[in-house]
Amino acid sequence: AMVINETGDIELLKGVGPLDIYRKKASFNWKDMLHFIDGAEVLAFKQHVFKTLENDPLFARQPGEDIPVEKMRELTFLRVKQLFRYDFITKEETMANPWKTVVLSDCLGMYDWAMSAKFFLNKGVSMFGATIANSGSGRHGTYVESTENMTTFGCFALTELSHGSNTRAMRTTATYDPSTQEFVINSPDFEAAKFWVGNLGKTATHAVVFAQLYTPDHVCHGLHSFIVPVRDPKTLLTLPGVLVGDIGKKLGQNGLDNGFALFHNVKIPRENLLNKTGDVTPDGRYVTPFKDPNKRFGASLGALSGGRVSITRMALVNLKLALVVAIRFSATRRQFGPKDAEEIPVLEYQLQQWRLIPYLATAYALEHFSKSIFMNFVEFQIGQIMRNNSDRQAEMGREIHAIGCSSKPLGSWTAQSGIQECREACGGHGYLAMNRLGVLRDDNDPNCTYEGDNNVLLQQTSNYLLSWLHAKHHDGVRIESPFHSVDFLEDFHKILGSEFTSVYSLLSFISVPLAAYKWLVCFLLEESQKRLEQQRALYKDDFEASNNSQVYYCRSLAIAYIEHNCLQRFHEQTTDQDTPTSLRPVLSKLCALYGLWSLSKHMATLYQGNYLNGRKPAELVQMAILALCSQLKDDAVALVDVFAPTDFILNSPIGNADGQLYRNLWSTVMQGSEVVNRPSWWKEFCSDKPVVGSLRSKL
Amino acid sequence: AMVINETGDIELLKGVGPLDIYRKKASFNWKDMLHFIDGAEVLAFKQHVFKTLENDPLFARQPGEDIPVEKMRELTFLRVKQLFRYDFITKEETMANPWKTVVLSDCLGMYDWAMSAKFFLNKGVSMFGATIANSGSGRHGTYVESTENMTTFGCFALTELSHGSNTRAMRTTATYDPSTQEFVINSPDFEAAKFWVGNLGKTATHAVVFAQLYTPDHVCHGLHSFIVPVRDPKTLLTLPGVLVGDIGKKLGQNGLDNGFALFHNVKIPRENLLNKTGDVTPDGRYVTPFKDPNKRFGASLGALSGGRVSITRMALVNLKLALVVAIRFSATRRQFGPKDAEEIPVLEYQLQQWRLIPYLATAYALEHFSKSIFMNFVEFQIGQIMRNNSDRQAEMGREIHAIGCSSKPLGSWTAQSGIQECREACGGHGYLAMNRLGVLRDDNDPNCTYEGDNNVLLQQTSNYLLSWLHAKHHDGVRIESPFHSVDFLEDFHKILGSEFTSVYSLLSFISVPLAAYKWLVCFLLEESQKRLEQQRALYKDDFEASNNSQVYYCRSLAIAYIEHNCLQRFHEQTTDQDTPTSLRPVLSKLCALYGLWSLSKHMATLYQGNYLNGRKPAELVQMAILALCSQLKDDAVALVDVFAPTDFILNSPIGNADGQLYRNLWSTVMQGSEVVNRPSWWKEFCSDKPVVGSLRSKL
Repeated sequence: AMVINETGDIELLKGVGPLDIYRKKASFNWKDMLHFIDGAEVLAFKQHVFKTLENDPLFARQPGEDIPVEKMRELTFLRVKQLFRYDFITKEETMANPWKTVVLSDCLGMYDWAMSAKFFLNKGVSMFGATIANSGSGRHGTYVESTENMTTFGCFALTELSHGSNTRAMRTTATYDPSTQEFVINSPDFEAAKFWVGNLGKTATHAVVFAQLYTPDHVCHGLHSFIVPVRDPKTLLTLPGVLVGDIGKKLGQNGLDNGFALFHNVKIPRENLLNKTGDVTPDGRYVTPFKDPNKRFGASLGALSGGRVSITRMALVNLKLALVVAIRFSATRRQFGPKDAEEIPVLEYQLQQWRLIPYLATAYALEHFSKSIFMNFVEFQIGQIMRNNSDRQAEMGREIHAIGCSSKPLGSWTAQSGIQECREACGGHGYLAMNRLGVLRDDNDPNCTYEGDNNVLLQQTSNYLLSWLHAKHHDGVRIESPFHSVDFLEDFHKILGSEFTSVYSLLSFISVPLAAYKWLVCFLLEESQKRLEQQRALYKDDFEASNNSQVYYCRSLAIAYIEHNCLQRFHEQTTDQDTPTSLRPVLSKLCALYGLWSLSKHMATLYQGNYLNGRKPAELVQMAILALCSQLKDDAVALVDVFAPTDFILNSPIGNADGQLYRNLWSTVMQGSEVVNRPSWWKEFCSDKPVVGSLRSKL
Repeated sequence: AMVINETGDIELLKGVGPLDIYRKKASFNWKDMLHFIDGAEVLAFKQHVFKTLENDPLFARQPGEDIPVEKMRELTFLRVKQLFRYDFITKEETMANPWKTVVLSDCLGMYDWAMSAKFFLNKGVSMFGATIANSGSGRHGTYVESTENMTTFGCFALTELSHGSNTRAMRTTATYDPSTQEFVINSPDFEAAKFWVGNLGKTATHAVVFAQLYTPDHVCHGLHSFIVPVRDPKTLLTLPGVLVGDIGKKLGQNGLDNGFALFHNVKIPRENLLNKTGDVTPDGRYVTPFKDPNKRFGASLGALSGGRVSITRMALVNLKLALVVAIRFSATRRQFGPKDAEEIPVLEYQLQQWRLIPYLATAYALEHFSKSIFMNFVEFQIGQIMRNNSDRQAEMGREIHAIGCSSKPLGSWTAQSGIQECREACGGHGYLAMNRLGVLRDDNDPNCTYEGDNNVLLQQTSNYLLSWLHAKHHDGVRIESPFHSVDFLEDFHKILGSEFTSVYSLLSFISVPLAAYKWLVCFLLEESQKRLEQQRALYKDDFEASNNSQVYYCRSLAIAYIEHNCLQRFHEQTTDQDTPTSLRPVLSKLCALYGLWSLSKHMATLYQGNYLNGRKPAELVQMAILALCSQLKDDAVALVDVFAPTDFILNSPIGNADGQLYRNLWSTVMQGSEVVNRPSWWKEFCSDKPVVGSLRSKL
């Protein structure tokens, strides 16, 4: 496990374990990598959080323990309360170094995502507190304060039972009554119940409720958000007119109490409208700083956009944990060998390398990417706070939206398939709950769905790209964006005319996928554009035309765009002057492997568009992938050591830093409370008469 | 839900539900399909099993209920005991119609795979009882009987903590002592503990233990199986010298108690050796009917080969259940639409069709395939029972082994990815435990691992194919196998010279993938052969050469082979004269879609080998896939109605036959015992002082 010793240095607690064989073979110094990726301040902070949790009995746990949902919710509530007491980051620190909030989320999520979610839903950047801070005005300051000291517990109620993706179709209403100067909140029926609301199941006292705002003249002004008290903060009893409850067990994250709410004539003061995008005067007139209702709607949902960038990172954390487990397992699990007498670690097999090491390369790519796009988001967010109205600020908003809508699918899908691969790569032992791969898969899964279904979100990204092509063709605009993710499209025609060229060398392994991805994005952009025009001509209906252009076109376009962007940023990092020379060789290999392996999923399209021809290009890509996997296998253990939290946080016996796979697994099994006892329920049945014959005749 | 009415006819209990819109649009009569696939006897049997479980309070359950592992194990034990009482199939019926055992496994598995596993591990075709019956001799008959009346409870102990795939490396020993005429069973250390043994955790009284047999002269005669009593059947207390226990919580199937066992000088009578492949005389001499120890080893493991064919079917059942849920959900969930006022079912979206309908086509392909290969296995098994020593019998053994080693990967991986797609396609509601997609994913997952890791098994299949090529090249053998899965390889050179030709028609949609798959298998066979030779020349080591030829070569070869075989059999079914004319159109579309969609994952290889060139072929495949998805979307609900068990068995509110998605979901939520109450644990904390400030200063 990673620890900081007295002098502040970082060390691995090593026994003379089987992992050390690989650690000694590593081509780079893993501590240098750790310092390069995290830096001293973040490292110290992570260690502080890890050790604080480990030393607090409230956070004690056993690998694979079986805890009822109700108990998980209680424990998580208590732990979140404790986290508020620990107050790991002050508001000032968050402002000075926003990345630290992400690091805290990483750390808490590595321990348990449900706990992290419950904590940040209340406090975090994107949820209750922040929504009020962003969408409200001075008059809502007390709510923000009481959230921060946890006398109120907040939640964010947008989704309804029958509507998720189609946010405009929400049916909860908020009707203004000038006689009392109150809004009256109503759910027309149970299908319009707010549903899936995190924190609402058991503990939330206040909800930010999204509802259609009606003025006394029966005019609907669209979706707005309102602070609605739902439970008494002292007794936690439900308030009159509100029916709230728990939606039940989920596939994962069961420490988080997701809930529902039905409202029947619930009255709230006029001031509880979060009035940044629109307000109602005491006498019932609607006023808004936005002239275009579409813009108002966009701004009202704009508060959500940080979430997708965060989810990209959360998914990566899951992938990293799974890789720590699977690679340490593979380096210590021996099976078969050239001679019967001596078995070799399964990591030595080409097939096992090919299953795991490309995901390891992807994790390094996403490590830099998730940080880099977060910094983009911070830049955008600062502009918002500064009320920057420049064109550049608006462009930043569009671009970060396009990035977040595709980075979340990229991150969550890659993690989901990577965790599954890790599970299978650990064989039966990967199927034991104690080794945590199941929890990681279950906890990562909702990343594919919340804050927008991945497939639906990708349409936002392709729309963004198509709009650039349109602007260039029709208005002669130069393609150039604040975060440069589309700049290469300016060379659209030149790129489409380019061809695959390559020699067998590491330099070429990097340049080949970069060039091929540029061609791929341009090709798919042009094809998508053609397909859309053809469908529009056929159906004369934008809705249908767009729907019929997703598969093989717009969807692939969005995926190729974000993979290119991720690769591009990783490539820039590996060649950056600030990147230590000693780390560049291994980073370059990881970058090449990530690029080639991702690209290999698009080979058919590359052939289809004649970018590739004949046998040689595919063979080169395949040979290069296998060669890089083989070159990186001796670095793999050191590369996951960089990602690994302490053993306590990782909570997976087969993934412990000492590599004592069987000893750790066995001792965890033996610590089970009822492991070798006769089943507690046996006595009830042992006096049964023997079962002879059958009940068949009686049926 | 499917029910049988008084006259024995099958009906859907229909409300005027939203699914009926699609049911009316179906192009075929779903009852005809049901009768075609199952036949009257099987249908009646399924209904009998379903209704028996539904009417027995012991099998009552709530969707998404949260049951502790210990309780799950108890419940499952009781249910299995009850299943023995019900005695759904007599031994005579099993012999007369072996398929009925599979149908029973389907039915029990649809209810709960852990229960089905616990039942069949004890009783079933491939496990305890059967192993004794197959590997033992007359002297073991009493064990078989006592298993069948459940006075003993059996299990099958092969895997050890540190060895799974490499069965030869098992380290448990059985040393014969002529002075007492006993075997002494020992585990050298905890790493050699038997591990993952189903039924052993809590309830097994006897184990079939695989151990290295040593005669008094210290000679090891390899792995043999022994009946070892582990618990007292009356008291369930552990017997002396045996340490058995529960390995703990798993990702799924927690009703099944997997266990471990360590043996310390455990003495068993000489007769407990299952002596079909080898025996020890009272004075300690080893005798065997096999001269070649490799053949003996093969025959000793041969008893396992039915398992993989069964798992192919089990995985299919999971895929079918997930599709019932996801397609019924998609036909009733409305989101967005051409006009704001009217939303359309998500099944109307091209993207949703493309995500789900190819899996539906695959399920129909696997439906026929799994039955067809089971019948092959039965034919082989009958030969074994008849002690048929013909070459054809031996060839059947090799071919069914090659089929089972690739059909299990095909089935389990397809189901795993299909269930994940279904989970995501149901959005947030797919993440609610009550809708069962999580359980299906978790319960299907081990199918990828047990009875051989998928990737390891595929090597057996590619070895089989390579041996045919070798036999043809070196010995001029005609390629022809009992089940005809390799017959087309006889035209190896002609096929490699063939080219892609197609027109846009349904006929072509079927012939294109069939021809392309034949080319693909031949191409990959030749490439694998070349790669192996090249690696052998390089490393002069078969072990290394084989390992380095898996990725992109042997592994892909085995997958292409089994996909081709599955497609070929499906194609034969659709064109068979016994297939009702009214069903052929929809089956042909399903067959075409399955073929094209599976093939589309190999497009890069088809281009790489110049089978395809330029833009047109890929476009045709893509257009055809989208066209078939669109043509099948109105049949999709009827197609899953055919697969669907009763609502009680399906146990997924969003998948109920009445299609009342929200009503069913809402009422299930409201049935939760603590749904709207204040959390049971609240009182303990409400008197806490408000949390102000932080503990930071105290840390």
